Amino acid sequence: MAKVSIPFSVETYSERRKTLMSKIGKGKILLLGNQDSSINFKDNVYHFRQDSTFLYYIGINLMDLNAILDCDTGEVSLFGDDASIDLIVWMGNQPKLSELAEKVGIKTLHPASKIREMLGGDVKYLPPYRSRHEIALKSLLDISQVEPSLDLIHAVIAQRNIKTEEEIQLLDQACSLTAKMHEYVLRNAKPGMMEYQLVGLASAFAWNSNAQWSFPPILTKNGQTLHNHYHGHQINEGDMVLFDGGIELESGYCGDMTRSFPVGAKFTEKQSNLYRIVYKSYQTALEHTKPERYYKDVHLAVAKTMVEGLKEIGLMKGDPDEAVAAGAHALFFPHGLGHMLGLDVHDMENLGEVHVGYDNTIEKSMQFGLRSLRLGRKLKEGFVITIEPGIYLIPELIDKFKSEGQHLNFVDYKALEDYRTVGGIRIEDDYIITSDGHRRLGEALANDLDSIESMRAEAIG
Amino acid sequence: MAKVSIPFSVETYSERRKTLMSKIGKGKILLLGNQDSSINFKDNVYHFRQDSTFLYYIGINLMDLNAILDCDTGEVSLFGDDASIDLIVWMGNQPKLSELAEKVGIKTLHPASKIREMLGGDVKYLPPYRSRHEIALKSLLDISQVEPSLDLIHAVIAQRNIKTEEEIQLLDQACSLTAKMHEYVLRNAKPGMMEYQLVGLASAFAWNSNAQWSFPPILTKNGQTLHNHYHGHQINEGDMVLFDGGIELESGYCGDMTRSFPVGAKFTEKQSNLYRIVYKSYQTALEHTKPERYYKDVHLAVAKTMVEGLKEIGLMKGDPDEAVAAGAHALFFPHGLGHMLGLDVHDMENLGEVHVGYDNTIEKSMQFGLRSLRLGRKLKEGFVITIEPGIYLIPELIDKFKSEGQHLNFVDYKALEDYRTVGGIRIEDDYIITSDGHRRLGEALANDLDSIESMRAEAIG
Repeated sequence: MAKVSIPFSVETYSERRKTLMSKIGKGKILLLGNQDSSINFKDNVYHFRQDSTFLYYIGINLMDLNAILDCDTGEVSLFGDDASIDLIVWMGNQPKLSELAEKVGIKTLHPASKIREMLGGDVKYLPPYRSRHEIALKSLLDISQVEPSLDLIHAVIAQRNIKTEEEIQLLDQACSLTAKMHEYVLRNAKPGMMEYQLVGLASAFAWNSNAQWSFPPILTKNGQTLHNHYHGHQINEGDMVLFDGGIELESGYCGDMTRSFPVGAKFTEKQSNLYRIVYKSYQTALEHTKPERYYKDVHLAVAKTMVEGLKEIGLMKGDPDEAVAAGAHALFFPHGLGHMLGLDVHDMENLGEVHVGYDNTIEKSMQFGLRSLRLGRKLKEGFVITIEPGIYLIPELIDKFKSEGQHLNFVDYKALEDYRTVGGIRIEDDYIITSDGHRRLGEALANDLDSIESMRAEAIG
Repeated sequence: MAKVSIPFSVETYSERRKTLMSKIGKGKILLLGNQDSSINFKDNVYHFRQDSTFLYYIGINLMDLNAILDCDTGEVSLFGDDASIDLIVWMGNQPKLSELAEKVGIKTLHPASKIREMLGGDVKYLPPYRSRHEIALKSLLDISQVEPSLDLIHAVIAQRNIKTEEEIQLLDQACSLTAKMHEYVLRNAKPGMMEYQLVGLASAFAWNSNAQWSFPPILTKNGQTLHNHYHGHQINEGDMVLFDGGIELESGYCGDMTRSFPVGAKFTEKQSNLYRIVYKSYQTALEHTKPERYYKDVHLAVAKTMVEGLKEIGLMKGDPDEAVAAGAHALFFPHGLGHMLGLDVHDMENLGEVHVGYDNTIEKSMQFGLRSLRLGRKLKEGFVITIEPGIYLIPELIDKFKSEGQHLNFVDYKALEDYRTVGGIRIEDDYIITSDGHRRLGEALANDLDSIESMRAEAIG
């Protein structure tokens, strides 16, 4: 029989829902669970992923469920159908919904079809990110335009942004497995392999741990292509590999890490030069990562460290503070320093990145580079974030900036020619903000240059 | 740079489209390509799978494309947008649509947004299987109800049901890789492993071959649960494993095979008894699989072999022909003997199983067992099909049939008690119907009891 495990106690789920309902105050909250997603015909489906907000408040990792939280009465209703005998013949015995509902403290269980009649009046819902939910909302609520509730969005984010002790335990597990997956790839990649074979190592590791990936991995010798999901190249001595991947537990909690390593036993000189700057930037980030610091300021401090390092090797010039203010560093570091992590690898990105990572004290900058910073707000105890500085040589971007005459005072385009094909390097780990600073989640995997090279030397033998 | 390979020639795609347009005669045919599918937020997406009919007529394995075939003018228009510089910075250089269009013989390329204004008049389209397509059809055509064209469905099926030599080459490749994946799992499964670790072997094999699965594998010690995607059990001496899985090439062509094997070096006596009956049934299927035979009759001949075998070991009784006519065999063999295979593992199931597997000479039976037979029509040269007999002891089904007093003349429910927990066994391979019979696709993997046991003995060492 398929097992559905519920990670937390009745009290946890009941408290979470009570907090949400009391914050919203009146009307009904509609929480839509996910359905199967078809690949190339209805019954050929992708791996099922429950909606994260549904997991957070309802806790049941099963498809075809919906819930209503009635803020006026405090009643919570779950809508779904038990498996028929026909389904049991094909799919095996299924857990009873009534038993699952009991485990998450829900007393009212209705057939799936009953939800329509229970949806009168003021109904608040979150933005749909799957077309099926868009259709369901329009049909259930008899509306032509979907209008998610901003109050509900903010209330959910306020709760989910602060991770509790029991959530942190699961995040620690996810991050430990993530570190082990990275180590497995780092120690088993060999010159001459294809990138997709390295993905195979990562996939075998995840399945072997009874886990999924939290996102399709970036695993490439062209790390300068930030969202590179192509895996068709051979890796050879002299190349670097950038692997950005994470493990997702059955409970939905995610890890997200990046390591960059040489295919041979050692980085080349230019690769080393850049690696050391990224590593130093990572250390800068750690120095600044603590409660009450705006993460945007941490990002900018990191950018300054990068400019100083790039000046030392002759790729940048001028005053570092001025270069950062002008956004010149973003030629090399066009993405943000990090993002929230939790039940989603970009936690709650479906609710709106700007609502999660910014608040009424800070607006998102539209400057190139900063506009890709997902998290800018003041750090608080309980936030779980990624720290992921990187330096990239993106030929298309270099050509664009150069042809537009951008940052001529800060970038030495001539010296840059020598580095044009070095690629991309990123170091990424996951941290919880504590009362007086931060703590790295999970069992650590080394990220300094010497440790990486020594793991690679052992791998190659 | 990400590469998009086009498997066939300009002529192949042009001919396919010409044939379709001439069959439809007038009006426009709208072919929707697939988009990315979101997992838990918009930008976290499942592995992209192009629509198979789009692959068949247009050949470009890239998202966010649509096409119109104008039957009145013969013009074929492709709608899509090239990557912007912003996208290239993040995603890397992308292939130019104009170059891809040229490779598939399409001269008219428009921006994606232009499709709306080109869609007046009589527009035919296929049934949507993704919600996003349902929304797109309603919006593009300004309709409230989706009404797919039955003429178009039949015309597409008539073409895609008959595989050409160049398609068969790719199917041979997919089936060879599928056989190798099965052998890899068969030779590396060890007592004490968890089912999910075996899935990890299958996943590593697929990635290592730069391929995907054609469907999420069934890999379980509870093979009696027909659509079992739960992988949480430990496998031990005395258990059997049923692995139903297939490889899908980048071109979209699929393999689909099943092997059942003992976790130890040998099947138990009861497992052996059932395995031999399934193997004999498979041989019966081969004897009957040739052009002009109704596949329903092959299915029924197989059912009779099963009843005869089950009589020999005392689980069934009475006249085999009468037992099959009554559907008594379906207690043990509740699914169909096979289905079409091609660009989809259940080829064209999105167009309607009954249109693919039946025609105006034969109607689908609603008898339990036969109603799950996806393919009943007369076999023709060029059909690619699966042959997959199986015997299952499904406790829930046995209890149901017994309590309803079903087939008391044919089933010995008392003797059955001894076999109640033996599980499920299936043997499945893929065949092309030739002018005088059939040919197994791909390099074969043995499926007789002795070969399976000897592979397992070597695996355990």
